Amino acid sequence: MSVPAQLEAVLEAGGAGLADSLARAKARLAEVAAGHGPELAGHAGGTLAAGGKRLRPLLVFLCGGAGPAGRADSGDGPLLAAATAVELLHTASLVHDDVLDRAPLRRGHETVYARGGRGAATATGDFLFSRAFAELAATGSEQGLRALSVASSALARGELMQRAAAWAADVAVERYLERCELKTASLFAASCRLGALLGDRPDLADTLAGFGSRIGLAFQILDDVLDVSGPAQRTGKPRGADLLDGTVTLPLILARERDPDLRALDLRTTVTDPAQVEAVCDRIAATGALDDSRTQALAHVAAAKDSLVTVDLHAWQHRALDLVADGVVQRYS
Amino acid sequence: MSVPAQLEAVLEAGGAGLADSLARAKARLAEVAAGHGPELAGHAGGTLAAGGKRLRPLLVFLCGGAGPAGRADSGDGPLLAAATAVELLHTASLVHDDVLDRAPLRRGHETVYARGGRGAATATGDFLFSRAFAELAATGSEQGLRALSVASSALARGELMQRAAAWAADVAVERYLERCELKTASLFAASCRLGALLGDRPDLADTLAGFGSRIGLAFQILDDVLDVSGPAQRTGKPRGADLLDGTVTLPLILARERDPDLRALDLRTTVTDPAQVEAVCDRIAATGALDDSRTQALAHVAAAKDSLVTVDLHAWQHRALDLVADGVVQRYS
Repeated sequence: MSVPAQLEAVLEAGGAGLADSLARAKARLAEVAAGHGPELAGHAGGTLAAGGKRLRPLLVFLCGGAGPAGRADSGDGPLLAAATAVELLHTASLVHDDVLDRAPLRRGHETVYARGGRGAATATGDFLFSRAFAELAATGSEQGLRALSVASSALARGELMQRAAAWAADVAVERYLERCELKTASLFAASCRLGALLGDRPDLADTLAGFGSRIGLAFQILDDVLDVSGPAQRTGKPRGADLLDGTVTLPLILARERDPDLRALDLRTTVTDPAQVEAVCDRIAATGALDDSRTQALAHVAAAKDSLVTVDLHAWQHRALDLVADGVVQRYS
Repeated sequence: MSVPAQLEAVLEAGGAGLADSLARAKARLAEVAAGHGPELAGHAGGTLAAGGKRLRPLLVFLCGGAGPAGRADSGDGPLLAAATAVELLHTASLVHDDVLDRAPLRRGHETVYARGGRGAATATGDFLFSRAFAELAATGSEQGLRALSVASSALARGELMQRAAAWAADVAVERYLERCELKTASLFAASCRLGALLGDRPDLADTLAGFGSRIGLAFQILDDVLDVSGPAQRTGKPRGADLLDGTVTLPLILARERDPDLRALDLRTTVTDPAQVEAVCDRIAATGALDDSRTQALAHVAAAKDSLVTVDLHAWQHRALDLVADGVVQRYS
């Protein structure tokens, strides 16, 4: 099942209310980009409008119960604010990542970095961070703001941890997983938590955050598998980009345990051109580390789904959240 | 009067309560730096501990009434949270500025950029931004959070505006002042507003924010004068650093109106080494533009002080806020 088809199935489960909510989030993101001066509109507009899978806003709405029946807050409600906030935060981190990676393209569009340079992209990212908190502050939800700031701090810490461990020969699986929790799972968890808190199911905040955290972790592991497995047209970046960056991910960690030659390889000095990178990717795949990484990710997805089975949610929410969890896997299969 | 002596006078006016509050803010900043993993502690600890004049926390406490009598919230109160938040936000913006300026030193210490590189410094700045909101979220003040996010967005917009206008030959005074409002005055204003809101004087929030905005504007103008006038040992960076950056400030704008040769000069192509920069600085000074810029800054300081004359504040608050306003000028005289 392709990504849009998967999303379509989720939207079907969520009904008109969900589709409306997502459309309103998209409109709100465009407003934020346009409403703060021409410099910013030029830089932020393209990135925000290009959008991605909008997975995080989707989780906010699903966990918040914005489904078939619609919700009372059909205006500028708290769920809309939260959905906008998590997407702004996510986009802010992408804009900064692109500066550090000197990335020319993102989501098929020129990056803010490529268009405006380091200064403009750093400031644009800072602005998007700020607006994320501004959107959510309007809800007056102290718990919500705490959840967003925890996730936002975690993103930055994960990024720091990744760069501190670059090229390291001895990254343990536990450290890798901790980094994935910080860098990716935390914002998935916060999206679900915000939906629960602001959609009047605060009793389910921890449960739904746990679900989000697990699928976020799976999402990151599968992303790291895809970096090694390719093909490049699936990821939009050359195969082995993480290896070139020095980012040590689960497939490499597992492969190093099995292949002494890989263990002895100093990536920084010996893997510097695309042909060498391709060869290392093939070598990692040959150890079976990709399959084992995939298996770990699938286990997290299964655990995420299991964790909701007995939870008191609407039938359409169960269906839609299961589909989102499956979608994380199917994107990479 | 030197800076420490000036601060001493303010502390005298504010009494033991103010000194205690500032000490607690310093301790809290150290806790934030230390409490989020070793990578971050290494990067953020030095910058936060080195500190600066702590002008923004000082404004929070003064406007919030943390004076001779102390305050009820002598524990982890809202004012402490706000003071910590504004300093975190300020430091975040400095850390990012240092990346963009490739600055080796800040406050006499190695910058995060110099120590850890672009990636670590960008992530550290992002983390400090996040923690600013996390600190303030703990107060549960929606208005406070809105004030901080407005200031935070403004900082980023000011930075963007500055980079968009780099090397421009036709920056109008109004645009320059707008940029100063965004880049500098907004956080001074937010500091005062937060003090008023969280120190139980919400009735004075706008008035005190207006005071903060005016002294922030003066602060920036005088900073820009100092960049041209030098000497370098006062600013910690070479004379004319803004000119080399392409940042068009009030002294240059006014000087260009008066000196056709300066107007005709293309800074980007002709002013590229320190000797040329010194010559342009001298030429700007010769037009009288520095004196006129200083006069504008002094007028803002006078207006700031005037705006409080009839306001219902404690006598010690009047005295201390006047001293802070004077300190902005004296730092540069």
